[in-house]
This record gives sequence, C-alpha cells and structure tokens, in this order.
Amino acid sequence: MTQMLPFAAWMGSVQAEVEDALASLLPAPHLVPAKLHEAMRYTVLGGGKRVRPLLVYASGALFDADRAAMARAACALEMIHAYSLVHDDMPCMDDDDLRRGKPTVHVAYDEATALLVGDALQAQAFQTLADSDTLAPARLVPMLRMLAQAAGSGGMCGGQAIDLDSVGIALNLAQLERMHQLKTGALLRAAVLLGAMTGTELTDAQRDALGAYSSAVGLAFQVVDDILDATADSATLGKTAGKDAAGNKPTYVSILGLAASQALAQQLRRDAHDALAPFGEQALRLRELADLIVQRKA
Amino acid sequence: MTQMLPFAAWMGSVQAEVEDALASLLPAPHLVPAKLHEAMRYTVLGGGKRVRPLLVYASGALFDADRAAMARAACALEMIHAYSLVHDDMPCMDDDDLRRGKPTVHVAYDEATALLVGDALQAQAFQTLADSDTLAPARLVPMLRMLAQAAGSGGMCGGQAIDLDSVGIALNLAQLERMHQLKTGALLRAAVLLGAMTGTELTDAQRDALGAYSSAVGLAFQVVDDILDATADSATLGKTAGKDAAGNKPTYVSILGLAASQALAQQLRRDAHDALAPFGEQALRLRELADLIVQRKA
Repeated sequence: MTQMLPFAAWMGSVQAEVEDALASLLPAPHLVPAKLHEAMRYTVLGGGKRVRPLLVYASGALFDADRAAMARAACALEMIHAYSLVHDDMPCMDDDDLRRGKPTVHVAYDEATALLVGDALQAQAFQTLADSDTLAPARLVPMLRMLAQAAGSGGMCGGQAIDLDSVGIALNLAQLERMHQLKTGALLRAAVLLGAMTGTELTDAQRDALGAYSSAVGLAFQVVDDILDATADSATLGKTAGKDAAGNKPTYVSILGLAASQALAQQLRRDAHDALAPFGEQALRLRELADLIVQRKA
Repeated sequence: MTQMLPFAAWMGSVQAEVEDALASLLPAPHLVPAKLHEAMRYTVLGGGKRVRPLLVYASGALFDADRAAMARAACALEMIHAYSLVHDDMPCMDDDDLRRGKPTVHVAYDEATALLVGDALQAQAFQTLADSDTLAPARLVPMLRMLAQAAGSGGMCGGQAIDLDSVGIALNLAQLERMHQLKTGALLRAAVLLGAMTGTELTDAQRDALGAYSSAVGLAFQVVDDILDATADSATLGKTAGKDAAGNKPTYVSILGLAASQALAQQLRRDAHDALAPFGEQALRLRELADLIVQRKA
C-alpha cells in the first residue's frame, strides 16, 4: 500500500510521522527541569535526515510491522543518535559549533547542559522502547538488548573510542572499516533489525540477508560521509566541512583517494541491493534507501 | 538464613558478590577498544560503598528473590551510578580530581575518555539488566522501564539539571528536597523497588511501604552527604570536601544549619524504620541500611 507512493512522498510521510512521535515522546518543555527538556527538544526535533527511522520503517514494512511499534523503535534509535551527536560535538571531542545548520547544544546552551542532554536522551531512548504498549514483553526484551548492544562499548561508543585513539595514526583499510562498523554501522544495523523485529517472526536466512544489507549500507554511509567532508561546503552539510583532514583523521578519501572512494560507494550500493534479493519486490524501500544514502549531497 | 549473619558480614558478602558480578559483566579489559574497557573497569571496580546494590539485596531478601537476578539489578544500578559520578566530576560540571580516593577518570585518562566511559556504562547498565536469563520478559520490561525512568530527565539527570541551575540561588527547603528526590533519591528508590521486583509479586501496600522507606532513606542520604561535606576532610571522604560551600551550592547545612541537619537525619532514620513496620522482623537489613546511611562517616 505505502509501496505505491513515490519514494520522496513515502520518505516525507515517515519523517513527519517520526517528528510527531518524537515531539510527543520527549518530555514537554514546560515540565521541570524546563531548561533540560527544552534543550533535549532543541537537539532532537526539527532536523536530521532521519536515516535510522527510515530504515526501521522500510524494514518493518517487509514484516507487516505495526506502525506504533515502528515509531517507538525509530524514536529510540533517533534519541541515541541525537545524544551521540551532542556529546561528539563537545569541546573535549570534536569541538564543533554547527550541527544540522544550527548552533550545537554546548554553544546554544552550555557544556554542562550538553552533557546532561546527551545522558538524559540515552535514558529516554530506553524508556521510549520499554514503554511500548503494542509489543509483547517477549518481543521487547531482545529489542532492548539489541539497542543497548548497538549503543555501548561493543557498538557506537566503542567505535567512538577507536576513532579517538586513531587520530594521527595511519589506519589500514580493515582497521578503518572495523571502526566504522562500530561507530555508525552498529546503530544502522540495529535500525534495520529492530524494524524487522517489530513485525512477524524473522527466519535466520532473512536475518542474515538484512545483516548483509546493513553492513553494506553502513559502510556506504561512512564512505559517502568522508567524500562529502572532503568535497562539500559547511552550508550544504549543515555542519563544519573539512574537519577530518584538519583533524588529521584517517578517512576513506585519505586512504583510497577520492575516485576509488566513489567507486567503493557504488560497489557497496550494489552489494546492498544484492543482499535484498531474497525479498524480491517487497524490499523496494530498502533498495531506495541504499540509493539515497550513496547519492545524498549532505 | 542470611538474616542470621551480623550486619557487617552480610554487607561484606553482598559487596564481594557484586564486585565479582561487576567484574564478569563489564567487558574484559583486553577486548577492543581496550582503553575504553580498561577505563570502564577503573571507574566501576574496586571502590564505592555499593549502597544501591545493598538496598537491592536487602529489599530482594523480603521477597525471596533469586540471587542471580538481584546481582543483575544491583550491577545495572551501580553502572548508572558510576557513570553519573564520572560525568559529574568532569571539568564542565563539578571539576573534581578525586573520587573514591583515586584520580577521577578525566584526570587518570582524559576528558574525551571520561565522556565515553559514562556513555558506554549507561548502555552497559541496560544491557546488563536486559541480558538477565533468570527473569521472565514480563518481569524484566517493567524493571527496565523503572531503571530508565530513574536515570533520565524525570530522575537522576533531571536532578542534576536542577542542581546546575541552582548554583548561587537561594533555594528553600522544599526546592532543595525536590532536587535531591530526583538527583539521588530516584536511583535509591529504584534500588529498593528493583530488588523487590526480582522476587515474588508485591502488593500495592508493600510497594507503598517501600516507597516511603526509600523517600526517607534517599533524603537522609543527602542530608548526611551535606553534613559530611561541611565537616569531614577529603582524605576521609575519598573526594574533595567543602565543595558545596566553595561552589556556593545550597545544602541542608547552609539552609538549616548543622545541628538542625543532624536532627533531620535522625528523624528521617526513624521515618525509614516506621515505614518498614508492615514487614516486621524480615526487614532487618533495610533497617540496618537506614542506620548505616545516617551514621556513616564517609
């Protein structure tokens, strides 16, 4: 049914639905402590490509997922993602002033508030998923476990730590890939699998296919990020461009060069499509998202 | 059975059991990213009074709780507590160099690592509880929900935010109490209730009694903290003494004076005992913990 919509219209409808869900799931801005709640909403609402929510909905559609359940999973992932950006932008990390075209949280508020916003958003993510009233507990517990695993030291935080330790060090391609599999890949993979888990039971083969798709899309996402950091301007990106080279960080572009990085992104896009073969036509949205991730300009 | 042990021996056995459980639940220090995992273990292991775990075990004992389940809940709470200390000690918050008699994480490592240690520990807390293999999903989901609620902007992070906003402001007693109910009270209350929830089903009356006990103990904990900050030295506390007065922070001592604060702590201890009346002799450990919290010297 939603398969009939043109991709842009489908994407817009999911983004609008997720924005509404986030606005209602985040604590109201007048609730005490008001400044913290305002800053949490400033961080999460009104911006972002919502890539993780789109993956949840695209994957969930393959398994007849309930929309309310997909919204919970999508919002939980987006809260984790948003908190990681806030902490990543802080002076002791990347020290960035601009995010999604707006001043970063520690600039708009202060560092202590940015720290607390991130901490509170992480808790809010787990609460958002645990509070689901449409998913049975036996379904929710593995989803909460997957979210925690993807967010923690075996996932996103672990990737951040490797990233920190690799500044000024000549990583090889395998090490760079491993870092990104954790830093951004873990949460993207969780988005695809959580979307599927909100629907009917997955077979092992389906889980493997989605895992292969996620790996390809996760890496493609990062390769394109590196290409954009090297080629686009800050106004287009909505964040500071050229940071990687300035920070002496290893990237796909610095290791492979620009042309080979662009070829790699295209190869990963084909890998993502190939992984979806078992799902046939039904996987249209996931294929379109792989295309979007590779072809995006910001 | 454990009721027969003298209090100090019971406390020692719980502390040892929790230390072992934490050591096995935290990622091994050789796993990549090794520095992050080492720093997580530096933060959590080998220190702390383990007040929240003690409350879990004392409360769980009233409801025939399974020890493995209590260990999960205790470790999850202790990870949340430990992460909050790491972030609270950072330069943008309290800027403290000493914690549990050791250099704080941002001093022993660096600020970026301290930020990530806290973030990863929060995820690890939810993973620790969600990974329980002795608690049914229908039991786990409300526990995860309670943990998230106690940790987030409606609990600990919210209390931190109010604390930040109250520096240099003359809070009245009710406002100070509200701040502490969130900042430390929410997690102590969660400890008491999560301990109980690992065992047999609670009646509403039992839940109310435990809630009243938690409120009294939570406030007593903070009143005594304020008394110790004003009267003890840094070597005894294992953290910097006199920070509140130096930071112009409202405390029970600054509002009520020392003598009235001491009287209040004693009154709260009696309130905690009174709240336990419905449990009779069985609540010995919870009574002893209320005494410990009020009579502690560090």
